[in-house]
Amino acid sequence: MALIVQKYGGTSVGSPERIKNVARRIARWKRAGHQLVAVVSAMSGETNRLLALARDIQAHPDPRELDVMVSTGEQVTIALLSMALMDLGLKARSYTGSQVKILTDSGHTRARIVSIDEANLRRDLNEGCVVVVAGFQGVDEAGNITTLGRGGSDTTGVALAAALNADECQIYTDVDGVYTTDPRIVPEARRLNTITFEEMLEMASLGSKVLQIRSVEFAGKYRVKLRVLSSFEEEGTGTLITFEDDKEMEQATISGIAFNHDEAKITILGVPDRPGIAYQILGPIGDADIDVDMIVQNVGHDGLTDFSFTVHRSDYLKVLEILKPVAAHIKAREVQGGDKIAKVSVVGVGMRSHAGIASTAFRTLAEEGINIQMISTSEIKISIVIDEKYMELAVRVLHKAFGLEQPT
Amino acid sequence: MALIVQKYGGTSVGSPERIKNVARRIARWKRAGHQLVAVVSAMSGETNRLLALARDIQAHPDPRELDVMVSTGEQVTIALLSMALMDLGLKARSYTGSQVKILTDSGHTRARIVSIDEANLRRDLNEGCVVVVAGFQGVDEAGNITTLGRGGSDTTGVALAAALNADECQIYTDVDGVYTTDPRIVPEARRLNTITFEEMLEMASLGSKVLQIRSVEFAGKYRVKLRVLSSFEEEGTGTLITFEDDKEMEQATISGIAFNHDEAKITILGVPDRPGIAYQILGPIGDADIDVDMIVQNVGHDGLTDFSFTVHRSDYLKVLEILKPVAAHIKAREVQGGDKIAKVSVVGVGMRSHAGIASTAFRTLAEEGINIQMISTSEIKISIVIDEKYMELAVRVLHKAFGLEQPT
Repeated sequence: MALIVQKYGGTSVGSPERIKNVARRIARWKRAGHQLVAVVSAMSGETNRLLALARDIQAHPDPRELDVMVSTGEQVTIALLSMALMDLGLKARSYTGSQVKILTDSGHTRARIVSIDEANLRRDLNEGCVVVVAGFQGVDEAGNITTLGRGGSDTTGVALAAALNADECQIYTDVDGVYTTDPRIVPEARRLNTITFEEMLEMASLGSKVLQIRSVEFAGKYRVKLRVLSSFEEEGTGTLITFEDDKEMEQATISGIAFNHDEAKITILGVPDRPGIAYQILGPIGDADIDVDMIVQNVGHDGLTDFSFTVHRSDYLKVLEILKPVAAHIKAREVQGGDKIAKVSVVGVGMRSHAGIASTAFRTLAEEGINIQMISTSEIKISIVIDEKYMELAVRVLHKAFGLEQPT
Repeated sequence: MALIVQKYGGTSVGSPERIKNVARRIARWKRAGHQLVAVVSAMSGETNRLLALARDIQAHPDPRELDVMVSTGEQVTIALLSMALMDLGLKARSYTGSQVKILTDSGHTRARIVSIDEANLRRDLNEGCVVVVAGFQGVDEAGNITTLGRGGSDTTGVALAAALNADECQIYTDVDGVYTTDPRIVPEARRLNTITFEEMLEMASLGSKVLQIRSVEFAGKYRVKLRVLSSFEEEGTGTLITFEDDKEMEQATISGIAFNHDEAKITILGVPDRPGIAYQILGPIGDADIDVDMIVQNVGHDGLTDFSFTVHRSDYLKVLEILKPVAAHIKAREVQGGDKIAKVSVVGVGMRSHAGIASTAFRTLAEEGINIQMISTSEIKISIVIDEKYMELAVRVLHKAFGLEQPT
């Protein structure tokens, strides 16, 4: 007997029929002898409907009241799923975030979980009850309803799994696992049976949007076994997200090729090469609440250097604006930039112990005549900025170069 | 400065535009220097939408889960109204039933209020905040969400007014007050400036569906000053529901003519006139959860009597079915009945001290050739059962006979 937390997203509970399907899946697990906690999102479309209603009233809805309203989405789903489970002859009981209670800070619309009181849930589980918990929501010290921000239901699932010391946290979504890359670009892309948390973090933040990044961090921190599965398939083991030190089998060198093309690059040429200059450039960007992704600075010469970084494409013009006076102030030669770029990343914990990954990647791109504009590396990934128009080609040739289409 | 509780029903908050109208009305009262508590229902249609969703899942939805779901309707409205108030520059704060907290028993879908913790509300009011409370809902000792049943928002308003010792509880609805009778039948029907609680109870239960009967009982019990007003008119003082002993002016003899035609009559002829016979007849009816309204038994003769009563028309055939064996058992002669009847009632506390009301009513009907089938009286009303086809005529001539079209 295992204690399993299952999280179902908005699409999986998007209609009464789908809710009944979820109930049948839970019933199979329950009847196999497991203890089950289900965490659910609002029915798909519901959160947007509520947000639109709020904006009809107030251009910038009050965050506290927005949370009161938006949290009703999951509250409806927990009741419906509990009813569906009872209709199958199971005992079931719903809990809102407040009822659990999932204590958060008071950061409305983006609250963070502080603690979870799991006593009532455990009592219900021990009585053979399926516990159904509203994802995405909590309550602060003063009793105000809070929400964890978009996608926060994953975090709720992981946090509950941690609090209950669950054997596994299963995230049901509309894909059947994590792939070596996007199958729409590389048809040979292969589902990974396992991926490490570190790789998942790199994959997720680089555009493989399967899990909310925060929930993955959370799972890593509390060592929750996380599995991504499809809610539309009966069978399938999905992708298990593992701890590197747990790995039994030989780790593949490279796990996947991630990519995105929603960034823009900015380069400041002829920057005086002296301490504090990076801060003078990036400080004003941070002050404007703009996230910087890649940062590259090469060795300088003649007392000058070039400084490059990437930001989200929607911030591009704003950043150029901000940098004009900055560049003048630090006496840089010129500010250049471009928003027709793509970032392609090779990810894998195996590259730590395998040499030649970078050179294989560079050679592969060179053979296709793809010019590399920026390079940045971490322990388990190599990110390369190229012209946007080569993105799909680059992903395909790198996927092949590292043999990702072949089963490990 | 007065403390005023205002309750707005589903139609009054049925759209973002109407919610903004409610906010503007509250703002006027607030800016006139009053403290304001607003109690709101779910947007019209929302509760039915949720109920339909539940029934898609479970033919007879679990009451606990139904309350979890249905209570979201008001939760959305409190958030939207609070936003609308803030948009007008007011301080506002929403409360669910749990947040208040409005403690109820555990009778899901028809819970009764046990107590109200008004400390937080009073703190907010003292800080100049408009407090917006979800009607119709509460929480039981164990933290389960409960609802008070349909129309329970009125009860919430009255209970809050009692707990806060408010100066007045204003119920905003789609009519501008309580009328001497239905203006659709008698165009000369007049809005009453005041009506007593006792009269209101008789009027409400007899078909003038302006207020939920339970809220009126509640208001009477806790001596809350209740006023019915239209939420669609800027001005207007509605109808104040008063305590008989508060009345300053001379009470009009008769306050109104109520009526309904959703009942059926049943008569058992030739019933042995002995103790316990009424119970033998009505016991099985009560056991079947059927409400009996009027009960009439006349003086018997030759050891036999006739026993009549009325039930809701939808229960008519069922009651006939139930009575067959009963009639045989008690050796009654015959069971008769009819479902083409109407009940017309003359209501007024003034009839206590005025003789001749009954005879005026009977003479008026006789002059129109309307046959009286049953009569039943209480201290402040006379109810008369007639053929359904005469209902409108009877209401009109009685309204005129008691001079109800003339201002007092």
